[in-house]
Amino acid sequence: MAKSKKMVYFFGGGKGEGNAKMKELLGGKGANLAEMASLGVPVPPGFTITTEVCTYFYKNKKKYPATIKADVEKALANVEKIMGKKFGGTTNPLLVSVRSGARSSMPGMMETVLNVGLTEETIPGLIALSGDERFVYDAYRRLLMMYSDVVMEKAAGIETADDMGIRKQLDRIMDQLKKQKGYKTDTEMTAEDLKGLCAKFKATIKEVLKKEFPDDANKQLWGGIDAVFSSWNGKRAISYRRIENIPDEWGTAVNVQSMVFGNLGETSATGVAFTRNPGNGDNHFYGEYLVNAQGEDVVAGTRTPGPVNESSKSEHNKTEVSLEKKMPKAYRELDAIQKKLEKHYHDMLDIEFTIENNRLFMLQCRVGKRNGPAAVKMAVDMLKEKLITKEQAVMRVTPAQLDELLHPIIDPITEKDHKPLAKGLPAGPGGACGQIVFNAVDAVEWKKQGKDVILVREETNPEDVEGMRAAQAILTARGGMTSHAALVARGWGKCCIVGCGSIEVDYAKKQLHVAGKVMNEGDWITLNGTKGVFYAGKLPMMDASRENKELNDFLKVCDSVKKLGIRTNAETPEDAVKARQFGAEGIGLFRTEHMFYGKGADQPLFLLRKMIMSNTVAERQKALDQLYPFVKKDIKGTLEAMDKLPVVIRLLDPPLHEFVPQDADKRAALAKDLNINADEFNKRADSLHESNPMMGHRGVRLGITYPEVSRMQIKAIFESAAELIKAGKKPYPEIMIPVVCDVKEIEFQLKIAKEVYAEVCKKTGVKKIPHMFGTMIEIPRAALVAGEIAKVAEFFSYGTNDLTQMGFGFSRDDIGGFVPDYINKGILPGDPFQSIDQVGIGELIKIGIERGRKTRKNLEVGICGEHGGEPASIEFCHKVGMDYVSCSPFRVPIARLAAAQAVVKN
Amino acid sequence: MAKSKKMVYFFGGGKGEGNAKMKELLGGKGANLAEMASLGVPVPPGFTITTEVCTYFYKNKKKYPATIKADVEKALANVEKIMGKKFGGTTNPLLVSVRSGARSSMPGMMETVLNVGLTEETIPGLIALSGDERFVYDAYRRLLMMYSDVVMEKAAGIETADDMGIRKQLDRIMDQLKKQKGYKTDTEMTAEDLKGLCAKFKATIKEVLKKEFPDDANKQLWGGIDAVFSSWNGKRAISYRRIENIPDEWGTAVNVQSMVFGNLGETSATGVAFTRNPGNGDNHFYGEYLVNAQGEDVVAGTRTPGPVNESSKSEHNKTEVSLEKKMPKAYRELDAIQKKLEKHYHDMLDIEFTIENNRLFMLQCRVGKRNGPAAVKMAVDMLKEKLITKEQAVMRVTPAQLDELLHPIIDPITEKDHKPLAKGLPAGPGGACGQIVFNAVDAVEWKKQGKDVILVREETNPEDVEGMRAAQAILTARGGMTSHAALVARGWGKCCIVGCGSIEVDYAKKQLHVAGKVMNEGDWITLNGTKGVFYAGKLPMMDASRENKELNDFLKVCDSVKKLGIRTNAETPEDAVKARQFGAEGIGLFRTEHMFYGKGADQPLFLLRKMIMSNTVAERQKALDQLYPFVKKDIKGTLEAMDKLPVVIRLLDPPLHEFVPQDADKRAALAKDLNINADEFNKRADSLHESNPMMGHRGVRLGITYPEVSRMQIKAIFESAAELIKAGKKPYPEIMIPVVCDVKEIEFQLKIAKEVYAEVCKKTGVKKIPHMFGTMIEIPRAALVAGEIAKVAEFFSYGTNDLTQMGFGFSRDDIGGFVPDYINKGILPGDPFQSIDQVGIGELIKIGIERGRKTRKNLEVGICGEHGGEPASIEFCHKVGMDYVSCSPFRVPIARLAAAQAVVKN
Repeated sequence: MAKSKKMVYFFGGGKGEGNAKMKELLGGKGANLAEMASLGVPVPPGFTITTEVCTYFYKNKKKYPATIKADVEKALANVEKIMGKKFGGTTNPLLVSVRSGARSSMPGMMETVLNVGLTEETIPGLIALSGDERFVYDAYRRLLMMYSDVVMEKAAGIETADDMGIRKQLDRIMDQLKKQKGYKTDTEMTAEDLKGLCAKFKATIKEVLKKEFPDDANKQLWGGIDAVFSSWNGKRAISYRRIENIPDEWGTAVNVQSMVFGNLGETSATGVAFTRNPGNGDNHFYGEYLVNAQGEDVVAGTRTPGPVNESSKSEHNKTEVSLEKKMPKAYRELDAIQKKLEKHYHDMLDIEFTIENNRLFMLQCRVGKRNGPAAVKMAVDMLKEKLITKEQAVMRVTPAQLDELLHPIIDPITEKDHKPLAKGLPAGPGGACGQIVFNAVDAVEWKKQGKDVILVREETNPEDVEGMRAAQAILTARGGMTSHAALVARGWGKCCIVGCGSIEVDYAKKQLHVAGKVMNEGDWITLNGTKGVFYAGKLPMMDASRENKELNDFLKVCDSVKKLGIRTNAETPEDAVKARQFGAEGIGLFRTEHMFYGKGADQPLFLLRKMIMSNTVAERQKALDQLYPFVKKDIKGTLEAMDKLPVVIRLLDPPLHEFVPQDADKRAALAKDLNINADEFNKRADSLHESNPMMGHRGVRLGITYPEVSRMQIKAIFESAAELIKAGKKPYPEIMIPVVCDVKEIEFQLKIAKEVYAEVCKKTGVKKIPHMFGTMIEIPRAALVAGEIAKVAEFFSYGTNDLTQMGFGFSRDDIGGFVPDYINKGILPGDPFQSIDQVGIGELIKIGIERGRKTRKNLEVGICGEHGGEPASIEFCHKVGMDYVSCSPFRVPIARLAAAQAVVKN
Repeated sequence: MAKSKKMVYFFGGGKGEGNAKMKELLGGKGANLAEMASLGVPVPPGFTITTEVCTYFYKNKKKYPATIKADVEKALANVEKIMGKKFGGTTNPLLVSVRSGARSSMPGMMETVLNVGLTEETIPGLIALSGDERFVYDAYRRLLMMYSDVVMEKAAGIETADDMGIRKQLDRIMDQLKKQKGYKTDTEMTAEDLKGLCAKFKATIKEVLKKEFPDDANKQLWGGIDAVFSSWNGKRAISYRRIENIPDEWGTAVNVQSMVFGNLGETSATGVAFTRNPGNGDNHFYGEYLVNAQGEDVVAGTRTPGPVNESSKSEHNKTEVSLEKKMPKAYRELDAIQKKLEKHYHDMLDIEFTIENNRLFMLQCRVGKRNGPAAVKMAVDMLKEKLITKEQAVMRVTPAQLDELLHPIIDPITEKDHKPLAKGLPAGPGGACGQIVFNAVDAVEWKKQGKDVILVREETNPEDVEGMRAAQAILTARGGMTSHAALVARGWGKCCIVGCGSIEVDYAKKQLHVAGKVMNEGDWITLNGTKGVFYAGKLPMMDASRENKELNDFLKVCDSVKKLGIRTNAETPEDAVKARQFGAEGIGLFRTEHMFYGKGADQPLFLLRKMIMSNTVAERQKALDQLYPFVKKDIKGTLEAMDKLPVVIRLLDPPLHEFVPQDADKRAALAKDLNINADEFNKRADSLHESNPMMGHRGVRLGITYPEVSRMQIKAIFESAAELIKAGKKPYPEIMIPVVCDVKEIEFQLKIAKEVYAEVCKKTGVKKIPHMFGTMIEIPRAALVAGEIAKVAEFFSYGTNDLTQMGFGFSRDDIGGFVPDYINKGILPGDPFQSIDQVGIGELIKIGIERGRKTRKNLEVGICGEHGGEPASIEFCHKVGMDYVSCSPFRVPIARLAAAQAVVKN
């Protein structure tokens, strides 16, 4: 670490050394605290230790740069000056919180220590100052519990059996006391109780951890800082980063901030709010608060909070008094601040506040998470309000959020006729249906077995994250809209209901009690996460996109920004129509072989098999003639449905043996039809076997060895187009040759195409059939010799599935044996079949485009692999200058968004 | 064709418009005729029509450029002037020959027409002039036979049944006449006979071909030119070009030259000679001649020729009178000319001459073909004689010729005890052994069935070329050292015996009569092509290289020129020793898995299988421990045998299922040893199955999922090296990781290697074990991200087999289904697994080297695929800056030569 680098950034007293743009260095929390301080918003003063210190910490065996102590002392002195308090002082002691703050929010994944600075020496001073001995010992027992757990056990790397952790042991001691005294809640404990408890806690800590709890403010502070940095590499944090694709190298910042207390009685409170409703996007200040509580009480979901104002009231909390009514002055101040902040940030914010004896403090502000429908509505609304630009609007919805809108919902007509079992808070939108499981491990296990599950919990905590991921939806009995379950589900756009108080969960028996019924593990339920209700059994689902009126507005904004064309992969007139409705601007991949896979494909499949098993050109030609009408029907129908738009039709691609029946009866029937005996038939069939079929006799290689197969398909294309032209349509077929590795293969096929073209024009009397002739680029060599290939090919379409297979030498059918290990061991950042490997395969793509366009300036370039519907891959396609991407009809809206975002980002 | 281009080049009268360097334009024959004319060598005057006219001819539907007629007329007038004769003239008519002449010699593959200009009008003049009516009508009947066949039938594209060609019909008429008159040879026919025959020939030509034979000198001339150009695309020529890799685009030139006659009686002769012996390289003028004959008689092998001088005498022709004795004056002149020409050309020449009434004419001179031993000896001798430089010497031996020396010969000790069946001319060196077949079709067919065959023929002709190619060796009853069979076999370095007069071939019965025995089709014989004798049965073969004393001298010259290092692929101490003898400078590929394939591998294979089938790390570790001593033994022995030289050791590469037994007994034994039941065993075994194993779980992927497997191998390497160091040796292992696609894979393996290294150093007390750590580049992506990979890898070794498989998407096991078609249809120039595809795969190689060396300047780069022993690929490796190539021990000498030639060529 360079000596000159600033390691500690101060904020408070109306100014901040950092600002909101410095998230990489200060983390999101630190950057925003600095920004708020500079804006004059009342923020408890403090300072942020940078993420660079975290990096240094890990590179140097958990040691700090030499000068940091002095920097921290200086910043602390500044805090003391503003607060008029002294850290570790006996008369007016300063307490601080020590919190994590990474570049990207990782809710609940890292550690926090509160009330740091409470010691035997400072306690009397604080009691004198607050006049509340109970409050001080309550704060002290919280410090002891957190500190022993987070700093003395976890950060020290002590591993314990599940129930033997220091936290659990202290919990048991407190439970014992409450039981002994007959208390039901923590608040019933007296100052004396708490004082005794603290003494017991300290003795237990020493006994269990073989170490004294440090009775020194500075030791506590550095212990807390250590613990926060250490928690960056805690198990939960690592597992969260894997899911969210957050790089290990980022590190966290540490925020040290003077404590303010929402738990100083009825004039104190704490809360979490959003400048707009994060669940549906409505432009109302929206939030929850608890009187006489600390922030963790709201997030933990142990008490159900009240609404911050009347417009935040819901079914669930309509009986509670709002903050607006309870503390009108503080509320007005809060409302003014949230308005100021939203205007300043040009976005919906998630804010945390504490009211200490009627005085408002802002503890945090950050851009708020929101679900898909809310994101779309806010983007469209804020654009209308001129709060943001078109480009900003496009960036305000993630592809995953848009995906939520395209997720299924319960069919509303059916739903009307069903009575919900119970109602909770609508924490994650859409519908979901699955079998009940009661813990995260089961959720993961059942999902592996291919089952759809709903994870049902009292409440969730960070240990449950992987199970939540595996589940179709999450249902909890406790917690509010800002509880752990709600936050996580919203981030993922997953269907979720929280705080469903009328259900009872019996983990031991694996039973759910609801509405007088007992449901067991494995029973089916259906959730409506948008309304917050759930039903017994499986209800039918439907497409949600038609229900959202802002969706089309938003996608039109995307279209006005994007440069890439969006096509679809479709092989039937029905799919073509559907894709046009989704906004497809053509077909990027029509697979001629598709008709042999689908339902009702018996007759064409039989004819195809006959063609494959033919031993002579004459036999094969006969089978091809019989096959012709089927091939032509699908092509013509699709060209017609895509009238005026381009349709890329790929000639037969898969290795022929894929179509050869293994079934003895089918083989016998085919043998009979071909008039050959069974032995001869089996000999022919077996001769088609290949050791590595993916690199075998397929694609254009079939068209070279059996030119008559190409001829039949090309004839179907030109005849269909000619007939449509005569009927007044404007078809535009693009004939695509697959599995090409050399220009001569295309030349060979083009010669056939030219002959057929002339024949069809002559036969139909159509003078010109507009079309293009091109190739897939899916073999690595094709990308390398693209300059030659473009001499003949008028367009390229990247087949990134095969390009990835051959570029990596990964057989997609076989990667199960090692790729999971590769991802777990950090060798691959992810599955390259999901998102294009931009470094390696991307390089091949770039080379191909550069060389191709050098030969043919106006070469049309697209992608038709499955990556064509994946946002990061789409951005890559935009950057390398492709003309279009093609994806499944359902992914077309995502692609439109991703294409627009690609423009804004680059 | 640009108007300004010169189309006709004159030669004769002491000057030539062209020269020997203009082979591309004038063909070899034309260029050398011009050169000889300029040197003052007596050449019959004539002119050459360029290869560019041939190209024009084919691009313009067999039409000529407009101005060519005038150019030809002008050149012809020049010839007439020098010869004092008139083409088509009645008193002193000029006759000309019309011959092909391509850039590279294609003996007998294209057409020739002689005696052009003989018509009813010119015949009397020629009779008057020569005073020999018989000679003139003999020339006329030859013209009629050739012209009707070559021009009127073949060039006109008339196809006939095998025995109904015009040539065959005229042959039959002549045979009938001879039978009728009781003649045994052609020379017995009188002038009257021939005159009558000519009349019959003309009538038959008209009847069969429905066209008059053109009785016009100019028509004959242009017919001949047409025919020669047309024969460039004759079937024979095309098939020869395929075998010899001669591009179709080159085209042929046409040489029109005034006729001189070697058949004007006893003072006339014709011959073919070499400035040194082409069969063994001896520095003696060597050749054959026939009195009273035309050149075609020598080449056709219908009469056995005499030696040109006493030193050319052999067993075979020692009773014949040499030209030196028969025509001493002409011989002295010829000898002076050959000396002058060799000195001028700095190479051994093949010359054709004719003596017309004691006057010597040189008809042709070209660099002479020679067999491998001769080529090596000539190169070494000429270098000593200072006739050529070191660089020229290196270029004088083709890799194929060197290969001949490395071909097997009959084990001399066994051969001593066997009596030859017969003796002929030693036309192609080395030994060969195979089953007798009697025609080219059978040779090709039997070869396809995997049989080794010897093609036995009366004599061969161009129709036999493919059969000759398929055969191990060729044996003919007739013909001399310049006969068709001898020329072709010498060009290929194939074992061949010609002119074996004591054998009789019965095609109908498929029998060979020799030494009183009857041998049938399928009987085994063994040929000694170096001595010209053959034996009944199969005699044992041995390596020939030790027998050639010039070979080492020559290879040392190569070593002094080459830049590339030459390593070998070897896995046993024995192979390592052998390869060092061949000149290997290290091992480029030691395959650790090799020991499981060979003989006596039962125990290690069983242990490997045990390791593979292990279900737990503990089971696997146990099997690995048992396997360890076997792995170490081979590695240590090989490192010791290659003392002081580098040994690249590749970690386990193939997919594991390759080693899993299919056999039920073996499976049962293994299951028992692993203490699992058969069902469980089969389940595990079957789970290893892959759809595309070539792109499956193999190479480093095994080392990632089973780090303990890598660890065991690396331990064996370091321990072997450490023990050898302690014994005073200098081992230099290079640890190579296969199937790498990303730098992180190598990092993962390097971590293991570093741990093992430290352990071994500690255990053995050896402080430093010199070694390198590197990777194969065989996955396309690895070449693309080579810059990253070189951060960790200290060397690259290109695995071009896999790189070709994945770069092309060609599974080598499956290309049989389409690659032959690709080559036949001209889509691929050849099998990319034989010679590196420089355009596509070569591009990947270049990218990898550039990017790798950009990161690590001194990166060692080599190749260990099978291409490493293939000359064109070696040249490519040199050009792209590799440090070494590695090939099988036997190919090392070839690689040394190819590496030296690469330097000279570039």
